This record gives sequence, structure tokens and C-alpha cells, in this order.
Amino acid sequence: MGTVNMKNAYFDNASAAPVHPKVLEAMLPYLSGTFGNIQLVHRWGAAVRQAVDEAREHVAALIGGNAEEIIFTASGSESNNLVLKGLATAYQGKGKHIVVSSVEHFSVLYAVRTLEKAGFEVSTVPVDQHGRVKPADVARRLRDDTSVVSVMLANGEVGTIEPLREIVPLVKAKGILFHTDAVAAAGVVPIDVQALGVDALSLASNPIYGPLGVGALWLRRRTRLSPQIDGGVQEGGRRAGTENVPGIVGFGEAARLAKEQLAQRAERARPLRERLIEGISTTIDHTIVTGHRDDRLPNHASFCVEFIEGEAMLLFLSSKGIGASSGSACTSKALKASHVLSAMGVDAALAQGSLLFSINPWNTADEVEQVIAELPPIIVRLREMSPLYAEFREQGGQ
Amino acid sequence: MGTVNMKNAYFDNASAAPVHPKVLEAMLPYLSGTFGNIQLVHRWGAAVRQAVDEAREHVAALIGGNAEEIIFTASGSESNNLVLKGLATAYQGKGKHIVVSSVEHFSVLYAVRTLEKAGFEVSTVPVDQHGRVKPADVARRLRDDTSVVSVMLANGEVGTIEPLREIVPLVKAKGILFHTDAVAAAGVVPIDVQALGVDALSLASNPIYGPLGVGALWLRRRTRLSPQIDGGVQEGGRRAGTENVPGIVGFGEAARLAKEQLAQRAERARPLRERLIEGISTTIDHTIVTGHRDDRLPNHASFCVEFIEGEAMLLFLSSKGIGASSGSACTSKALKASHVLSAMGVDAALAQGSLLFSINPWNTADEVEQVIAELPPIIVRLREMSPLYAEFREQGGQ
Repeated sequence: MGTVNMKNAYFDNASAAPVHPKVLEAMLPYLSGTFGNIQLVHRWGAAVRQAVDEAREHVAALIGGNAEEIIFTASGSESNNLVLKGLATAYQGKGKHIVVSSVEHFSVLYAVRTLEKAGFEVSTVPVDQHGRVKPADVARRLRDDTSVVSVMLANGEVGTIEPLREIVPLVKAKGILFHTDAVAAAGVVPIDVQALGVDALSLASNPIYGPLGVGALWLRRRTRLSPQIDGGVQEGGRRAGTENVPGIVGFGEAARLAKEQLAQRAERARPLRERLIEGISTTIDHTIVTGHRDDRLPNHASFCVEFIEGEAMLLFLSSKGIGASSGSACTSKALKASHVLSAMGVDAALAQGSLLFSINPWNTADEVEQVIAELPPIIVRLREMSPLYAEFREQGGQ
Repeated sequence: MGTVNMKNAYFDNASAAPVHPKVLEAMLPYLSGTFGNIQLVHRWGAAVRQAVDEAREHVAALIGGNAEEIIFTASGSESNNLVLKGLATAYQGKGKHIVVSSVEHFSVLYAVRTLEKAGFEVSTVPVDQHGRVKPADVARRLRDDTSVVSVMLANGEVGTIEPLREIVPLVKAKGILFHTDAVAAAGVVPIDVQALGVDALSLASNPIYGPLGVGALWLRRRTRLSPQIDGGVQEGGRRAGTENVPGIVGFGEAARLAKEQLAQRAERARPLRERLIEGISTTIDHTIVTGHRDDRLPNHASFCVEFIEGEAMLLFLSSKGIGASSGSACTSKALKASHVLSAMGVDAALAQGSLLFSINPWNTADEVEQVIAELPPIIVRLREMSPLYAEFREQGGQ
């Protein structure tokens, strides 16, 4: 079990992850001595061009794609916006109907909302109580004018892995483009775009321990795309702006490491995840594990703790040196109930107590024990202050 | 004059500039130990939130704006796209007519081209032989349905400073929004958005010796804007995507230094620029100085060398350790003639020999002498290979 110490135990890696030391090492030359514009023919341009080319190879290799199919962006959110708006616009001649799942990231859901305002029609596919999309539910929504379907590879909030192997062939059989948001899944589970059969896939650097401020879109060769940032010829004319060389180099190194260490990271995380799920479920009553019990990311444990408000839990945990998250970090304060939990049919009051832990390659069994030791008294204390819990007890609840 | 040595003399700072050592120092903690999602309440979120807030203050202070008016982006190109598409969309109820100058950056010109495809009408204002927009030419194009006018503060290719003090009041008197692209001017000349009276201003980090991959849009309070990257609540809901904390912190420190050292940098650069202009003009015949002779950026010297192809010059200079640029680094290979030089009425053949030097705070008088010593023999050699020059000589030219 390991001894519980009072050191920091950071488990909010889905919101913001540390940069791998080797990533920083790879970036540093491009933040100090080595710089130049890769579009230019002089020696400075050549030096950074090679580094960017190599990074492109590494990012492509992580998902089984080709380097020239990678478009670097500034974030997973930008990749999602670029691909949905870019494909919808480029293929509007085919039709103006788009299908997305109800548990997509906000950058997918709000991008298609913008498309709706511009005259596109959007169908949303529900999920079951585990957050899984049913392939038949997707198939039922496909129409002759459907241009793009977007279903994520795995959900960052509840850890559920979507059954893309069953969904993609149904969509591709109708000649419809398929995009998947792999921001939460990349580097955590093996991905092969060829085997999956998708046309586009979104990635981000920080969730694989690369720097913030970099993302990528993999787009299958010969797929058309309307750029969303117009200007220079960077990224094959599909995304203007001077290349973020240090960021791209860091992302490349993070992708290389993620591919190399993928199995070992998963093997290391899985028992920690199991212990978190078992420890929290057995020591805290009125708690549910959210997401699918088995088809979930190996580094991801998520819960709803009844009669508790998520932010209060985060503050109390933080005071004990524990970093965790409550639903999506992108949710506005006004929109507290997670759209993911709500789509899964979780009661709004219960959803308030959302709590999630994502495990990085440096987290230890000791840190997991720290969580399991510190969380129960925090819950007791918070419930003592909760009017909902008082009411529940008055009505004879246990 | 200084002695000429064979060390590197990098003068391509407009395309890619070194990161200031103090900027890297400021960024490093956020690339290693200190990380967290600023949207979250825990201690990790709080630590980075404060750093991002301070950076926002510094960037705002550089241009006389308020911190809450700063929207961080990934590049100057993204800022230009965001503001033009974002204002055009938000204010389309007022009208769908936009006015831009003909020497704007590609990220402005291609952004408005996309708007044209979406039903907007765009008027382009010409420039004189020095690249200056005439205020009356802007005024003449203003209509009742004009929503936005965009004229850059200074041109990165020919260094000309535009007469915004005269142009802005004409536009604002008609209640029309005014945007200026200050990517080339910020940190080089003093900027005060209040005195200028503009509504929006684009910035980038690298040209002021901050990291690549970060830009900003200053947008006057209460100005509406349609986001171009939808999703989370970052940047006041106006630009989704997890904040690039190290990049933003670096940009903030670069802005702080730029403001502090602005006068001293300009004083240091001006004699180097004058010596470049004088040295090159007097030693190489059939050469013109492009841009305005006086109203130009103090760190910018640009030329057109007749009978020469720009890229060949860059390669030969590079072999002598000299970094320079030829027109815009964002130009596609297919689009060789600079749209800026072309708008200034420079002959297409002459425009091929475009050559520009931008001076950073570390460039020395020795490096300038290196350029002045190395360039003339390169020109002689290239002209010997030039069929155009041979033809000119055959026809009796000197």
C-alpha cells in the first residue's frame, strides 16, 4: 500500500499536465540559440525546417499517419474547430448535415453550433449510462446530405472509450467523412488511423506531456479542407501563422516518447486507477464511478460523490496537496452541470459532485494512497455543511 | 566602422527573431515545475492564473490598453483573422462593407477574401510609391454600410509607418470600427491605443523577442466579436483552447522589456539602419531603397537590387554568415512578386531583387559592416549569371 506522506499528489493531468523533462530538453535549443523562419532558404531556415519535419514524423507515427497529413495548430480546440468548420465548408456541395455525439468536447459542440447558425443542420447522437455511443444510433442519423460524422475516441471527463471500430465502418460505407477527437486518448491507448479507417483525427500536445499551445490535426491525404486562419503558406496553406518551432519540436518529442512508452505507461497506470476506483468506492458511500467500467482509459478514474459540490472538493483536496478536477476545465462557472454526465442520464444534483483523477507517468502508489486517505474526511466535513445531505438524513437516508 | 569578422550577422528578425534571455528565464518555471489549468480553483490553477494575469497587464501596457482588453492568440495571423472575421460577423447588422489597405499582411488580405466569399464587400485602398496610404483615399471609400477599416501601423516588408493619426479620425468620425495590425510596429515605435483612437490592434510575441506561437488581439472594451475558435470559456469566451501559459508568460516579459527599452532600442538601431541604407545604396548601383525614407521603422532597411533574384541573394549571404529576408516569409513560392512592392508601383522584375534587413537589440556595427563588405561582390557575381543584366549591358546600360 505504501506510506501516506504529505507531498503533492497531482492527478489533474487531463486539465494541465507536466512537460516531460526530455521534451523540455528537446525544446530548449529552439528557445535560445537556434531560430529562423522555416519558409526561408537561408541556413537559419534550414536548421529549424529539419527539426519541424522530424517532429511532424513523430506526431504522425503516434497515430499511424504520414507526416504530410499533419497540420500543426495551437490546441486540440483549434484542431476540432478547423476540422469541423473546414470539412463542413469544403464539402457543403455534398450536403449540409453533420452528426456528432452528445459527449463531444465543447470545441466540437460549439463549433457545430456556429455551423448551425450558418445554415448547417446538426444531429446529436445520445449515449448510454456509461457514456457509450451506440453504433446503430449513429447509423440511424446518416442521410444523403450528411457530410461529416464526429465521434471522439475517448472521453476526457468520464474516461469511456467509444466503439469506433463498430461505428466507423457504418459511416464509411455511406461515403461520409469521419472525424475523431483523440485528445484524451492519444498516447494512452494505441491508435492506428489506417486500421480505424477515419479521415481526420485531432490531437493536442500537453495531454501527452508536451508543451501547451500546440495541437495537430491529422487529415487523410486528398481530403479537402477550408482553412480557418487565412494568410501565409504554412502547413500546406491550410493554417497560416509563423510556425511555433519550439512548441512543435516539443510536441514531436512528446509523441516519440508516448509511442515508445505507451504500453509501459498503461501498465503502470492501470493498477493505480484500479486502486483509486476501489479505494474511493469502498470508503465513501453514496458515490458512483462514472464512465464505462472496463472500456475506459487506463489512466482515468472518475466519480460522482453525492451531496457534494465539486469545486469545494477541489479546494479541500488542494489544501491537502492533492490536485484533481471536477468535470471539464472548460466549463463556464454558469454552466456547472457537466453536459457529459447529463447526456449519460446522471441526475443534475449528483453531477455537481463530479470528481476526476487522471494519472501521469510519474504518479506513484503512495500518491494514490494519499488520495484514499485524505478524501473520506473531506467528504464527511463537506457533507456536514451540505443542506442536501441534512435533508436526506432527516428523511431517514443512510 | 569596426572590423569585419566572419561571425554570423543575423538581420532576418522580421521573419524569426531570437528569444530574449530574460524571456526564456521567465518562461522556464512554467515549462518545468509550475503548471496547472488556470480555469481551476486548486493551488496549481491559482499559481499559473496569477502569472497569466501579470502577462496580460504587460502586453496591455505596451500599447496603452487595459489587461481585460487583451485576447491571447497563437500568432499575429490568428489575431488578424479573429478581428476581421470576428468584427465583420458581429457587426454585419450595420453593413457588410470592409476597407483595407493594399499593403496589409496576407493574414488580413486573405481573411477579407474569405469574407468576400461569404457575401461581404471589400474595398482596397492604394498606396503611394513609398507604401503610404493617403487619408483621403480611405475617406473616399467609407460608406453607410462600412463596418470595419483595417490599416496597418507599419509595414514589415518596407518599414513604412502609415499615417494613422490622420486616417483614424476620418474613420471614427463616421462611427466605423478601426483595426490596425501592429505586428511589425509594436516594441519598435511607441503605441498608445487611446491617443490613436483605434478599436482593435493585433500583436505578436516573436517580433518583440518573445516566444513563437503567441499573439494577442487588443480589443476596446464593449466591442463585440464573434469567436473564431469555439469551445471553452478561455479569454472571456472569445477564443477557446487551454491557455499557452509558458508562451503567454514569455510574451508578457517580452512586452515588459520592449516597453522599458523601447527608446534605447530605437536609438541603438537607427544609426545601424542609416549605415545599412547608406552603405548599400552607395556601393551597389541599380539599387533602390524601398519604403518611406523618414517615416520608417528605426530598425528596418529594405532595398530592391536590380537584375537579381532575391532567394539567390539570401543563399549567398547565408553562406557568408548573413541572415536577411526577401519580401514576406509567408509568400508562396508561386507568388514571388511581393504584393507590397507591386502596390507601390515597383516593377515586377525589380521586385524580384527585394532584400530586407531588420535589426535586433543585439546586432552590432561590426555586423552591419560585414553586410556592407560581403554584399557587393555577391551582387557582382549574381549579375554575371543574370541574363537580364547581360541584356541590359548589351543595350548599353551601365
